[in-house]
Amino acid sequence: MAFLDAENPIITLTTDFGDRDNYVGIVKGIITRINPRIHLIDISNNIPPFNIPAAYYLLMTAYRSFPEGTIHLAVVDPGVGTERRAIAIETGDCFFVGPDNGLFSFLKKSDIKSIVELNNRKYFSTNIPATFHGRDLFAPAAGLLSQGVAIEELGGPAKKLTGIAKPSCRRIKGGLSGRVIYIDRFGNLVSSIREENIGDRTGIVKFAGERIGFLKRTFGEAEPGQALGYINSFGYLEIGVNLGSAENHFRASYGDKIQILFASR
Amino acid sequence: MAFLDAENPIITLTTDFGDRDNYVGIVKGIITRINPRIHLIDISNNIPPFNIPAAYYLLMTAYRSFPEGTIHLAVVDPGVGTERRAIAIETGDCFFVGPDNGLFSFLKKSDIKSIVELNNRKYFSTNIPATFHGRDLFAPAAGLLSQGVAIEELGGPAKKLTGIAKPSCRRIKGGLSGRVIYIDRFGNLVSSIREENIGDRTGIVKFAGERIGFLKRTFGEAEPGQALGYINSFGYLEIGVNLGSAENHFRASYGDKIQILFASR
Amino acid sequence: MAFLDAENPIITLTTDFGDRDNYVGIVKGIITRINPRIHLIDISNNIPPFNIPAAYYLLMTAYRSFPEGTIHLAVVDPGVGTERRAIAIETGDCFFVGPDNGLFSFLKKSDIKSIVELNNRKYFSTNIPATFHGRDLFAPAAGLLSQGVAIEELGGPAKKLTGIAKPSCRRIKGGLSGRVIYIDRFGNLVSSIREENIGDRTGIVKFAGERIGFLKRTFGEAEPGQALGYINSFGYLEIGVNLGSAENHFRASYGDKIQILFASR
Repeated sequence: MAFLDAENPIITLTTDFGDRDNYVGIVKGIITRINPRIHLIDISNNIPPFNIPAAYYLLMTAYRSFPEGTIHLAVVDPGVGTERRAIAIETGDCFFVGPDNGLFSFLKKSDIKSIVELNNRKYFSTNIPATFHGRDLFAPAAGLLSQGVAIEELGGPAKKLTGIAKPSCRRIKGGLSGRVIYIDRFGNLVSSIREENIGDRTGIVKFAGERIGFLKRTFGEAEPGQALGYINSFGYLEIGVNLGSAENHFRASYGDKIQILFASR
Repeated sequence: MAFLDAENPIITLTTDFGDRDNYVGIVKGIITRINPRIHLIDISNNIPPFNIPAAYYLLMTAYRSFPEGTIHLAVVDPGVGTERRAIAIETGDCFFVGPDNGLFSFLKKSDIKSIVELNNRKYFSTNIPATFHGRDLFAPAAGLLSQGVAIEELGGPAKKLTGIAKPSCRRIKGGLSGRVIYIDRFGNLVSSIREENIGDRTGIVKFAGERIGFLKRTFGEAEPGQALGYINSFGYLEIGVNLGSAENHFRASYGDKIQILFASR
Repeated sequence: MAFLDAENPIITLTTDFGDRDNYVGIVKGIITRINPRIHLIDISNNIPPFNIPAAYYLLMTAYRSFPEGTIHLAVVDPGVGTERRAIAIETGDCFFVGPDNGLFSFLKKSDIKSIVELNNRKYFSTNIPATFHGRDLFAPAAGLLSQGVAIEELGGPAKKLTGIAKPSCRRIKGGLSGRVIYIDRFGNLVSSIREENIGDRTGIVKFAGERIGFLKRTFGEAEPGQALGYINSFGYLEIGVNLGSAENHFRASYGDKIQILFASR
């Protein structure tokens, strides 16, 4: 754990706790009781309730932007109080803490140095309420890691992570077919088709029965109000509308089909 | 004030200022001008406008999660610029700053060591605009406390806190009857019935003319889409829907009646 | 730059990135990678998408509340990836970083000591994605300034700022006529008429064909549910409804006409 910056530790939060209630504040309070020097940064607390794939996408595309040693606390936890495990993960350069329900399954085996179950009775009571593990289990675990407590101290080793169904990106005749996996506040539609699937080819993007045209580089290359396909800043094929919302324009939903048909050379 | 951690002071915010405007940012700016080392943590800035009982519930159930010496700034202030007093409170281990309109009336007499009115002209001008005391009065008061200024320095002693009507929890034949006092972002309905009112009895929860069944321990004990009653993590009887929203399911509102009918033994 | 507090640097954020996605968290992550000691404060990340005038108003009325040396990062950037310049500005006592699209045009020539274009290839690659300059250009620039890097290091000098159409405040017979330039979360309607335009006169406020009455000092001077005009805490004529929303009451929109008719003496 040479990589933990003990002078300036950071804990990020990715939850579906929302910003109306006091849940996020309470989690932060508990953490500061353990480590008053902590720097807390929200990735998002407005994950749609119980939407594990949305949290998966947002955490996967955000965590590398943080310094080495950052501790990523993620709680989207429809199974709170049931048999799903509570875990902490150490990779080569950061930590993750949360329920083992697929949230962290973007991590490759080769990324992971250690997984433990949060079951050391020295730190975690068996007698906690069954509805708010963010406060009673995950916040203390993150706080302890930020103080330099070794991950092995938090509990016994755990086997491999629970996965989630990966969003598909299939080859079709002359192209690729994927799905809408995330819709952002601008109404941009993120697909499951990645830049690496497309490679150095180009092609025409299709959505909702409409040919949207060749991949563009940025919004300004489409007219105001016009749809465009482009590779987003995380390397995913995305559909947007210049100065507008593709979600509204197409009445689009999570899971809708997006295709790219490669140009013949 | 031995309990103030001068190295790592914390100020929390509980307001109805919302997250669209710049009001919260301005309050934080003013505080950092007084104390640049301050750690600012939002409890919630999305209290429904002017809803003092909602702020009361959220602050009451959150403040004990913070370290000793934390300063809780709370501004839900429909009476800004009128005769309501502006106060600061010191308890055995933390501070509160805000309008005296019932926000802090969950504090018991025995909790309170000192109440002062914010009227020391050395710190607070009489000539401030009448619409944004969060910026011009409460933020400076919280900032000064965080620097170790004694509460008595902020103004003259004030008598007892203004109260608000406490949400009722009445005995009825064979049970208890309360009201919905808070609805969270998941659509869970918090009632005014407390665990201590129920004691070691169990019973059937009734809401909206429907028998919801015996108290459960966690969401997973109900089928997806099914309603359940349980004691929430703050000790209040709450109604939720597993993987859904009780607010939508029942078209519930603040003030709706919730009952528990005890099982005969 | 004697005014930069190197021990406690502050970066504020004013963006239309919203609070659902991970964009704000990523920007903060990038900044902490450059300067782990940084104090990050949100002014607002919920600017309506692409609404430069709203961001202009919120930043203009907030920035003076922060300590000397604060770095204000503002990204409302409909032209991302096009020819608009990316800039940093140094005034007598703070910094601004963002796109040169009018966001900062409330600054007077006499306020500005230096404007540079973010084009020093030592820090900023030409090879960045064209859709997320908040992450790839503006966050690094703000982080570098917070470490004490001189603004001239970030790129070559830039000429004057790009402006935006200023909201009008015209003299009419017996009064002044302006427009709704901002609507806050309470539904208060901020107009383009400033206290300095009104001076020591008083008058009757008119909106939506209705005479709202003489200027008042605070909400409590109107009956609950009644509309009132007053000078807001930033010095702008504003229309509100006591314990209600003027936006809903009048079905008001951005750009609607507000007038004040001066009382004859």
